[in-house]
Amino acid sequence: MSEKQNYRILLQYEGTRYDGWQKQGNTDNTIQGRLEAILTRMTGDPVEIQGSGRTDAGVHALGQVANFHLKGGYDPEAVMEYLNRYLPEDIAVLRCERVSNRFHSRLNAVSKTYVYQIETAPRRDVFTRRVQYGLGQHLDVEAMRKAARLLCGTHDYKSFCGNKKMKKSTVRTVHAIEVAQKRGDTLLELRFTGNGFLQHMVRIMVGTLIEVGRGQRTWQSMTQILEAEDRQAAGYTAPPEGLCLAEVRYNMDMEGK
Amino acid sequence: MSEKQNYRILLQYEGTRYDGWQKQGNTDNTIQGRLEAILTRMTGDPVEIQGSGRTDAGVHALGQVANFHLKGGYDPEAVMEYLNRYLPEDIAVLRCERVSNRFHSRLNAVSKTYVYQIETAPRRDVFTRRVQYGLGQHLDVEAMRKAARLLCGTHDYKSFCGNKKMKKSTVRTVHAIEVAQKRGDTLLELRFTGNGFLQHMVRIMVGTLIEVGRGQRTWQSMTQILEAEDRQAAGYTAPPEGLCLAEVRYNMDMEGK
Repeated sequence: MSEKQNYRILLQYEGTRYDGWQKQGNTDNTIQGRLEAILTRMTGDPVEIQGSGRTDAGVHALGQVANFHLKGGYDPEAVMEYLNRYLPEDIAVLRCERVSNRFHSRLNAVSKTYVYQIETAPRRDVFTRRVQYGLGQHLDVEAMRKAARLLCGTHDYKSFCGNKKMKKSTVRTVHAIEVAQKRGDTLLELRFTGNGFLQHMVRIMVGTLIEVGRGQRTWQSMTQILEAEDRQAAGYTAPPEGLCLAEVRYNMDMEGK
Repeated sequence: MSEKQNYRILLQYEGTRYDGWQKQGNTDNTIQGRLEAILTRMTGDPVEIQGSGRTDAGVHALGQVANFHLKGGYDPEAVMEYLNRYLPEDIAVLRCERVSNRFHSRLNAVSKTYVYQIETAPRRDVFTRRVQYGLGQHLDVEAMRKAARLLCGTHDYKSFCGNKKMKKSTVRTVHAIEVAQKRGDTLLELRFTGNGFLQHMVRIMVGTLIEVGRGQRTWQSMTQILEAEDRQAAGYTAPPEGLCLAEVRYNMDMEGK
């Protein structure tokens, strides 16, 4: 019998119709579930996929990374073509390659970038409405930028964790939060880069920054929120449709085969 | 009783779910029908809307223009807000203003610009798939540009007319057809500007240009197609989802109020 080989894929999906990345019991409507079902049909053996991380129901991806092991020496191009032939039109594999057997898409990820898009005009753009949060309010972008700077660094982000039963460390490093105005000034794009994000962490940060932008919180209060280590201290959880996993990065030594 | 006033609106729509612009009898699922129903409810009187032109089922608009007459001295901002409150999320009014009573969105239009987007990569982008034709084939862009140049000018475009029973003149002026590669070279954008377009004319031109890009026709053959004045001489009708009415222009003297 041939040895198993490790395949890494780069994925896009519009998460609108799905219950998120992670597979769920019987009534499965997840990205992971769709991929595994197709690979299992292709190989005749159960295949398990590791994603770089879960994305919640309704969240999108421009550059999700996942890996899986197959025996049989499949050509990576053929695997990609097979997947794209049977995947629904809102999920696409952009790249497939063989990687070292040691590669693990979640454990080896060194940084992730999420982008959150907020429509501040009273009416959402009809063509991009599925990937933007239709807030319909203008925000104080300068105050949001100052607040965003305070949220960066290495901190205990317990106040920004949506999982109350989280038992592992809630310390993470957020390298950068950029706040950019696009399309004139009717689209606000928040770009988060960090070594990892807790459950709902980006969406709670977005909700908190929106409250700063509305003048409901001061930018200086970010320090107290972090210190509180209490979910109640932070703002609301922004809805999933504005969020997109843009990029996952790995160390150079994991890029090789 | 107050006199009627003329209102002009600028509209966006994702045409995917609709049977085109023009109102149809009983089972109405058109853009015009949606707009008229809301305005009729607002005013209590039947309102008729004139569009700058019909768009086919499945065709989109970034800048459709329409006008209608209302009595009662409605504030244009209030009309726009009312429309946007009741319109479905794939139709949006971007602007509403009072114009001269002489203004007619179809009769006074002096030029229109349509954009047709073709995905040439094997897999469509998941986020833009509703507004692009997923051809999945690379095309000879230089040959298409040469062919496009021959299709410009003032000609009888009968070969590019989808309506066999067309009794009026089929002479039109096409000012420009630009062929641009975007997103690396996986997206081809064809931009048509002219004083008017016959039924399906843009989509038949696109189908014919694609056949040139595939090497099934020479770019020089465009001259013979025009001379034939026969729909059979031209190529296939490209599907509606790639087409978008981008802009309608009016004479300066029609811009005033």
